[in-house]
Formats: sequence, structure tokens, C-alpha cells
Amino acid sequence: MKVGLLGLGTVGGGTLNVLHRNAAEISRRAGRDIVVSHAAARDYNPDDLEGLANVRISDDAFAVVRDPEVDIVVELIGGYSPARELVLEAIENGKHVVTANKALIALHGNEIFKAAQDKGVTVAFEAAVAGGIPIIKALREGLAANHIEWIAGIINGTGNFILTEMRDKGRDFADVLKEAQELGYAEADPTFDVEGIDAAHKLTILASLAFGIPLQFDSCYTEGITRVERQDVEYAEELGYRIKHLGVTRRTQEGVELRVHPTLIPERRLIANVDGVMNAVLVKGDAVGSTLYYGAGAGSLPTASAVVADIIDIARTLTTDPGNRVPHLAFQPDELSDLPVQGMDKVETAFYLRLTVEDKPGVLARVTGILGDSGISIEAVKQKEPLAGETEVPLVLLTHRVLEGDMDQALAVIEAMDTVRSISRIRVEYLD
Amino acid sequence: MKVGLLGLGTVGGGTLNVLHRNAAEISRRAGRDIVVSHAAARDYNPDDLEGLANVRISDDAFAVVRDPEVDIVVELIGGYSPARELVLEAIENGKHVVTANKALIALHGNEIFKAAQDKGVTVAFEAAVAGGIPIIKALREGLAANHIEWIAGIINGTGNFILTEMRDKGRDFADVLKEAQELGYAEADPTFDVEGIDAAHKLTILASLAFGIPLQFDSCYTEGITRVERQDVEYAEELGYRIKHLGVTRRTQEGVELRVHPTLIPERRLIANVDGVMNAVLVKGDAVGSTLYYGAGAGSLPTASAVVADIIDIARTLTTDPGNRVPHLAFQPDELSDLPVQGMDKVETAFYLRLTVEDKPGVLARVTGILGDSGISIEAVKQKEPLAGETEVPLVLLTHRVLEGDMDQALAVIEAMDTVRSISRIRVEYLD
Repeated sequence: MKVGLLGLGTVGGGTLNVLHRNAAEISRRAGRDIVVSHAAARDYNPDDLEGLANVRISDDAFAVVRDPEVDIVVELIGGYSPARELVLEAIENGKHVVTANKALIALHGNEIFKAAQDKGVTVAFEAAVAGGIPIIKALREGLAANHIEWIAGIINGTGNFILTEMRDKGRDFADVLKEAQELGYAEADPTFDVEGIDAAHKLTILASLAFGIPLQFDSCYTEGITRVERQDVEYAEELGYRIKHLGVTRRTQEGVELRVHPTLIPERRLIANVDGVMNAVLVKGDAVGSTLYYGAGAGSLPTASAVVADIIDIARTLTTDPGNRVPHLAFQPDELSDLPVQGMDKVETAFYLRLTVEDKPGVLARVTGILGDSGISIEAVKQKEPLAGETEVPLVLLTHRVLEGDMDQALAVIEAMDTVRSISRIRVEYLD
Repeated sequence: MKVGLLGLGTVGGGTLNVLHRNAAEISRRAGRDIVVSHAAARDYNPDDLEGLANVRISDDAFAVVRDPEVDIVVELIGGYSPARELVLEAIENGKHVVTANKALIALHGNEIFKAAQDKGVTVAFEAAVAGGIPIIKALREGLAANHIEWIAGIINGTGNFILTEMRDKGRDFADVLKEAQELGYAEADPTFDVEGIDAAHKLTILASLAFGIPLQFDSCYTEGITRVERQDVEYAEELGYRIKHLGVTRRTQEGVELRVHPTLIPERRLIANVDGVMNAVLVKGDAVGSTLYYGAGAGSLPTASAVVADIIDIARTLTTDPGNRVPHLAFQPDELSDLPVQGMDKVETAFYLRLTVEDKPGVLARVTGILGDSGISIEAVKQKEPLAGETEVPLVLLTHRVLEGDMDQALAVIEAMDTVRSISRIRVEYLD
């Protein structure tokens, strides 16, 4: 079984190394040898790479995709282009494809899977979501008996590292982000991580696998963690909650919710205790109940673990006729559903509200009155003492579950009060 | 695809119901209909069962195994006999088999898999370990790129329920066991659960999948939770630990550790926070690092979720030649290793020791002196005040890692001291 590797960077190098150092054990499992015969890379450090002696190196990735010896093309370049063109040409040449490219799958997956189906080849992408955690296999196969109700995941390690540090050490967002960049957890341009775009790519994929709907990245509501303040983390803690950056997708009567945003979770939930750069995905199925999958969501070797598992899976299905293989999006391609993605106004969650208000009598009564008029009931209120010399105080409220459209209306009225300076809101999920 | 069901009890009924109520979704995934055509049961309650109208019912299970219409036999009777004979005859008749029977696989799996291999059929057993959690799939496929280093699992829900209640409510073992029996979590004869035999069955299976060794239930060290006292739970908590009943299997230079016993775990570890009847399995692979799988380890529908996933898997491999299917024990049958199971004296862990000693000067010095002479160093000591009128006090020690053989020798000397009344010891695992 001959693998053509596009990219010898962090994940590409890890894949080469895992295939080399665990070669004997992988053969004992897969019943055949799996070797990298050809790799494309312009910049690479031979000292970090094992078993390079038997690998032909090209600087043109298309040379690998066109190599008749290559059975599986492993795309680890990332980005949209030329990744998309390389994958499509590999498929056109009858090769199976493995990719860790979440952006590519979330945006161009429908086109890519259609092409693969037409050619009878497989495109595998376990490494695209939650790194080394075999969550795609769990959803497509392990939980295949279930009607999936919802998924909630910590699927961006950088964001989770930042929120964990803010909580553990009482640090500010900007301060931790700078450290994360120095540690190499966050990119120089951290937008994809801290604004939730990376998590939205992954959530888009999970939702399609769970509910049998086409990939719809453009419909994903995406809110980052840049506006979470240290005091929100503290107040959440006082109320018995942790703040996590969650991707949530839920099936309702009317459609599918698809949303990434900071979320308060009760501190006794297992997923509330997933800290640092680790990822975890919680899946609720009608038969199995809640199951959780935890592990490293990024990094050279964890991601390579998923890439190589996909390669072994493909090796096993070489003699299976395409109709019997696990479908790309878990459901047979002609059985996808047109369940619509719901607007956020239809989403029901509880809310944490932090208002900065003038320290005057009657403000709390007016705020709770407006919420009550919109049918929003309050679970907890914390009115903080003003600091010496300050005339503004934080007012923290926890509401019961409410339609987001109703909350928007109530907050518009509250925002117009001349005693209210600012409003922060964070959704609350109980995940039970 | 026609399924013959042996048993319509808790799990058999759940399997029938899941296949019926999720029939449309399962067909959309599997690309074919999966129906129960024949079931064997003597006692069953039709009111609890869905879709029974189209099922032929026999009171003789062998009638199902011999039914030429049946493609897959699902064995949910439990126990060793006639389960073993039924499974072997189903294989002999060229049928695939799905079973939730951990005892059968742990004790007779080697024989059963050999028979299945000879006939080119599959015996699937996802439901045999940790109920609805797809841990067998994760080990055999999702983590197939890894050299597995160790596994530690909470794989008996009854035991975890008891330990959780003891901690949360300060209750005694016997008291909680009685409640667990009333709630239906524990059998009238709770031996299999509280003495660790059920966990040992499951651990035996996990070890074979992880390390590619034959099933060796007889070599599993098995210690129950019946001697864990309320005060151990309290003292562990004071030291920053939780007590869990773990199955641990670890690869060392010399062989494989295979052991079930109560274990102190640092409270910040995710698995230390798995409470109630829930199960969780932590797997350490060389590439992926630590991954954890959490969910319901028993119950009608969670177990059925795993049974039906196995049926769908088998449906997918009907056109795959047997050599390309996932091997029963993760490694190709001619590639199993003869790595021996190690004796407990070779196992290295830290220890929690609770001694009941006479309240006299010099006892602590003598105890720590004996430990020191055996090269055992101490991490923490807690000497408790005697209760009014008592002449005995508890002395609690936490040691660093030590070979169990060395600890045995030191404790033999300590036990002989005339000031020492009794010694309890519990192993400590850091799981990092």
C-alpha cells in the first residue's frame, strides 16, 4: 500500500514518523505494509523526519497526485487552494484521499464527496475534527444505531487554553493570547481560533455526520471569545459554572441549530472540566444517552494518529465495493436530508447577563421588570458593591431558558435605559 | 439483512426496539433494511417490545441458529452455556455473530474467534465492554496507528455507583450496596460486580485488543471494593484523591500488567470525576497521547446501541473478503504476541496505606524506618488524633512509586509489630 504525502510540515512529518516508527505494529494490525513512497514538500527539515531514505521527494505536489504508484494521497498542506485542486485531481486519478483539512471539507466537502462517489474512491477526514480523537468514526459507525439529538464540543484547543488560563490564574484575554502565541498554540493571526472560525469548520462537519445534512458552513453562527472578560469568568465561577467555547449543534422540530459561542456550563459536568489545549466532544443519542470523547485536538503526532487510522481504514476497504463502504457524511449520499439550519432567534438557551449600571435605587427592579414582561424568568441575581469612588456597578443575572429572539427584544429595551451603560451576555447550556 | 435474536430480556428487548424505532435512520446510514426475523425467548413481555408482529418467536434458541433465513445471530442470553454452544453452531452454519457477553468472550473468545476465522465470518462484541461506549472500535480502528502504552478504565457501573455514593454522602459500603440492589443496579448476588470479576472480563478483552495478545482471563489480578471503608474515601479526599475501581493494563519491558483493584487517582484527572453508574476508559497511545471515552456502561438501550452498531458494521463488510476485515483481536490472527502477563510483585505503583496503630510514641518513626529500609519513600503522612477513650489511631501514608514485591516485604515486617493492629492498602495511579 503506497502513500503519497502532500506536505512534510507539522502533521505531514508526524504522519511519516508514525508510519515509520510503528511500521511493524501497523502491519500486524492492517495485514499489509503501508509505506510512504512519494512526498511533496519545498521546505522540510530532514533531521525531524524518519524513514526519509526510501521516499521520493518532489517539490511539485501535482507530481505526487499523478504518480501511478501512489494508492492513497494524503493532503496535509491546508488552506483552500491548491488543496482543493490537488484533492480533486487525486480523485480523478482514481486515488483514495486522506486529509486533515477542516476548512477544505467544511467549504468544499459537498463537491469533493460527489467527485469521490462518482469515481468510487474514499475521502477520509478523521484528522479534520478534534485531532487524534476518533470522533468521526464514533459518529459515523460507533453510534450508527442512534437518532442523534445534539452535539456539544470543545473543538479549538487554543481557545480552551486561553479560557483555562483566565480562570486558573485570573488573567486577561489579551495577556493569555500573547503567551499562547509565544508557546506556538496560537497563530500570529489568531482570528481563526479566537473568533471561532476553526471551531465552526469542525462543527459544520460534525452536524452533517450527526444529522445527515449537506455541509453548510455559511449557515453556522460564529461568535468568538474575544469579548469574554476576566470578571465574567469569576462571576460564572461564583454561580457554579465554567465558561467554555463550545460548538453546539442540535436537532429540533423545525431544523438544526449550528452555533459556536462562549457558553456557561455547570461545573460538575465532565466537559466543564476539560482544560488547557485538550478537546472533548459530547454526543447525545436517543439510545446510548450521553457519550464523551476526549483527547488532544491538535499537534503533530495526535493528528498523525488520525491520519494513519484513516489510511488503515482505506486499506481494509480496498476489496469492498463502494456501496458498502461507510458513506462520507455517515448517511448514504442519496439519503441526505434538507432539514434547514435555524436562525439564532429560534434558539432556546438560558442566559448569563452582566450589566454595567448606575449605582441608583430601582435599576434592578426595572431590569427584572423588563425581562419579566418578555416572559423571561430569573434564576439568580448578583448585585455587586461599587468600588470606592465608582458610580457604576456590575449587575449579574442568570435567566431560565428563553428564545433568543425574546431576549434580543428585552435587551433592546434595557439597553435604552439611561441608567444602563453596557450589557454583556453569554449563553448557558445544561447539556443534560 | 435478517437478524436472529437470542433473548428478549433487557438487552434483547432494547435491541429489538432500537432496530424498530430507528429503522428509517439506520437504513439511511447502512444502505439497506435491517430487520429482526426470528427471536428465541421463553419469557418476555410483549408490551415492552416494538415491531414484534413481524418476528417469528421460538422457545428453542437453536431453532434461530439453524434458521437458513437468518444472516446474523445476536446472542444476548449471557452466561457460558448454552451461549458458547449457540455461538459455535451459528458460526458453523456460516452466520455472523454479535454478542454482548463479556464472560463468554473473556473465557472462550480464543476458541470462538478461531472457529469464526476458519468459516470466514465475523464475531462482533462492542457491547461486551463499557456498554454503549464505542471503545472496542476506538481501540481496533480509531487508534490503530498507535503503540498502546496503557489503558485504565472504570468499567463496572455498579462499583462506581457505590464508590460515588460513599464519597458524596459519607455512606458505608454495605448500606450503598443494599440501595444499589433495590435500584436494580446490582444483582441479588453482587459478587461479579463488587469483587471485580465483571471488570476483569472486560479488562481481559481490552488488553488483548491493545497489545495483540490472546485472551487470558485467568491471569488477571482481581481485587474488589468490599474492603474500601468510608474513612479511606475521606482520607483520600483530604490528600486530593478519589478512589475508583479501575481496570488497568499496561505494557512494560517484560510483559503486560493486567489488574483490577480500587485505586486512588488525583482529583483533577478527568476520569476521577466520572461518577455514578457511568463508565469511562482512558487509553494512552504513543502518538495520540491520552484519550478518554465516557458513557453509559450498561442498560437496555445503551447496550443495544453497541449491538446495533455491530450489526451495521457487519452489513458493511458482507462484500469484503475476510482477510480485509478488522481482525477480532485488532491484530491479524497469526500476528498475536506471546508477551506474558506479569505477576503483581513486578507491578510498580504508589501506595496509600492506612494503619491502625497503638497511640504510643515512636510507632510512626518505626513504620517509616521499615519502609525506608526497603527503599520506599514517603510523599505524605497524616497521623489522626485518637477519639476520646480510644487507644488506637489511624496512621495514613502516601508513598512514592514502589515495586509491589518490595511493598509486600516491608508490610510483612510492619504487620509483625506489636503496636500495629491492622493495615489497609490501596494502590495509587497518576495516569499521566
